[in-house]
Amino acid sequence: MSSQFESSDPDFQARVERSFAEQAVMQLIDASLTLVEPGQVVIELPYREDLCQQDGFIHAGISSTIMDSACGYAAFTLMPAEARVLTIEFKINLLAPAAGDRFRAIGKVRKAGRSVSVAESELHAVSAGGDKLIATMVGTLMTVRPQ
Amino acid sequence: MSSQFESSDPDFQARVERSFAEQAVMQLIDASLTLVEPGQVVIELPYREDLCQQDGFIHAGISSTIMDSACGYAAFTLMPAEARVLTIEFKINLLAPAAGDRFRAIGKVRKAGRSVSVAESELHAVSAGGDKLIATMVGTLMTVRPQ
Amino acid sequence: MSSQFESSDPDFQARVERSFAEQAVMQLIDASLTLVEPGQVVIELPYREDLCQQDGFIHAGISSTIMDSACGYAAFTLMPAEARVLTIEFKINLLAPAAGDRFRAIGKVRKAGRSVSVAESELHAVSAGGDKLIATMVGTLMTVRPQ
Amino acid sequence: MSSQFESSDPDFQARVERSFAEQAVMQLIDASLTLVEPGQVVIELPYREDLCQQDGFIHAGISSTIMDSACGYAAFTLMPAEARVLTIEFKINLLAPAAGDRFRAIGKVRKAGRSVSVAESELHAVSAGGDKLIATMVGTLMTVRPQ
Repeated sequence: MSSQFESSDPDFQARVERSFAEQAVMQLIDASLTLVEPGQVVIELPYREDLCQQDGFIHAGISSTIMDSACGYAAFTLMPAEARVLTIEFKINLLAPAAGDRFRAIGKVRKAGRSVSVAESELHAVSAGGDKLIATMVGTLMTVRPQ
Repeated sequence: MSSQFESSDPDFQARVERSFAEQAVMQLIDASLTLVEPGQVVIELPYREDLCQQDGFIHAGISSTIMDSACGYAAFTLMPAEARVLTIEFKINLLAPAAGDRFRAIGKVRKAGRSVSVAESELHAVSAGGDKLIATMVGTLMTVRPQ
Repeated sequence: MSSQFESSDPDFQARVERSFAEQAVMQLIDASLTLVEPGQVVIELPYREDLCQQDGFIHAGISSTIMDSACGYAAFTLMPAEARVLTIEFKINLLAPAAGDRFRAIGKVRKAGRSVSVAESELHAVSAGGDKLIATMVGTLMTVRPQ
Repeated sequence: MSSQFESSDPDFQARVERSFAEQAVMQLIDASLTLVEPGQVVIELPYREDLCQQDGFIHAGISSTIMDSACGYAAFTLMPAEARVLTIEFKINLLAPAAGDRFRAIGKVRKAGRSVSVAESELHAVSAGGDKLIATMVGTLMTVRPQ
């Protein structure tokens, strides 16, 4: 994949992977980081009944969990090595029920600012029948530098 | 607590409790429903390390999980007995890190419409030092009637 | 432009143009509708000092005016001939100050539902130096059918 | 009105009034600033046909114009004298059609941060029949200090 972005930090992939490994909730839900490129990351999640709401679909909060991290780490790839990333807000639109075998959250930076960045993520449900867009998110991220 | 709302369904509390019990994800994260009144519900969550992001705070997606259900069930209290509730979108603002012993999501209906409702939730972190507002959400909910 | 959408109403262009002509605020601000295709519309606005905020940039509310109509009419192109369109909510992210000679709001449907649709719009500032993305919006639209 | 906030700048009212007077768009639409207190401002707008959308209601973008300024100036009351305020994003929920004689946008700070603040505004339609809540907004504002 080509990208309009370049990272100023040659170590950005390892930095994202390290941070992702420290997100304990990702192990709880079995999410994995499957792509890290400048300005873009992908997080995948298998379907599990214990992640569901009352109708047997993945709960919107669990979808938000991987979509928020996809936005955050997409922005994080472009931040300086010493910075931390902080979500200040996000909005999610649920386009279809979260039914499928696996779910893929694709996060992309829309604008990389010095202190404020905007990223978007899409959530796709993957099943034998193919790939379906089921949710979109837009989030605002802060670059937090050491004082 | 008094409320500006009345439910047309005398059985609304049992209906919300039944649906909440069917949200498997709530058991995974140990969330419990602690108040159900017309147009308002409260969901509580104890702190657990395995719900956290990389800095040891509850992940925004887990906060979203209980806040979305708080919005949804607040709206559900005012829906007819045969309806289902569906979140179509929400937005969350993260005001402070999710640190604390317990977390309390308070969902309230802002507007109850025939097909579209708007609800808001606040997330409070509870610890020895007191109670602190750490996030706000606004969500749009659909009333889905059997065809 | 090709599109993934088709309109069931052969008269959708005239229908959108008629409705746009009835939006009196568009005349007040000199906005014009420059493209209408299935699932997509473009609205343009020239810079005017009396549309500005305190720093001489177009006010975010005026940007919202053309971006909301771009979302709404994009959704409207796919609605049945007898329906009205209603915005139920939108969110805007302001990526850069609204400086430029002209502004172009490009609205596209993301999901066309029977009663609820989701559309997105981008706002571009156009000047001698080129074209710059300055804001993004996501909106939720309702199809309102005659009773 | 009492408030949980105090302004560090004794001149905050004059500062808000000066900035509001520089928002040319407020004169175009006849909006006026009717209250400025620490963490809260009110902006009012009379109904005018040339501010309307196709059904004779005030366009959501015009509602956004006064609601965004109400959020922004509420946050601005709490900023240091030398700072500027910048909206980075907002979300609006439209609860009812904007019909009425006058409209009142009440903006209140929810969280005042050093660089990022969150404010909310309500829009009320005022007519002979009384006062009705017709829209809610939540916005994120940046404090921009001179370099």
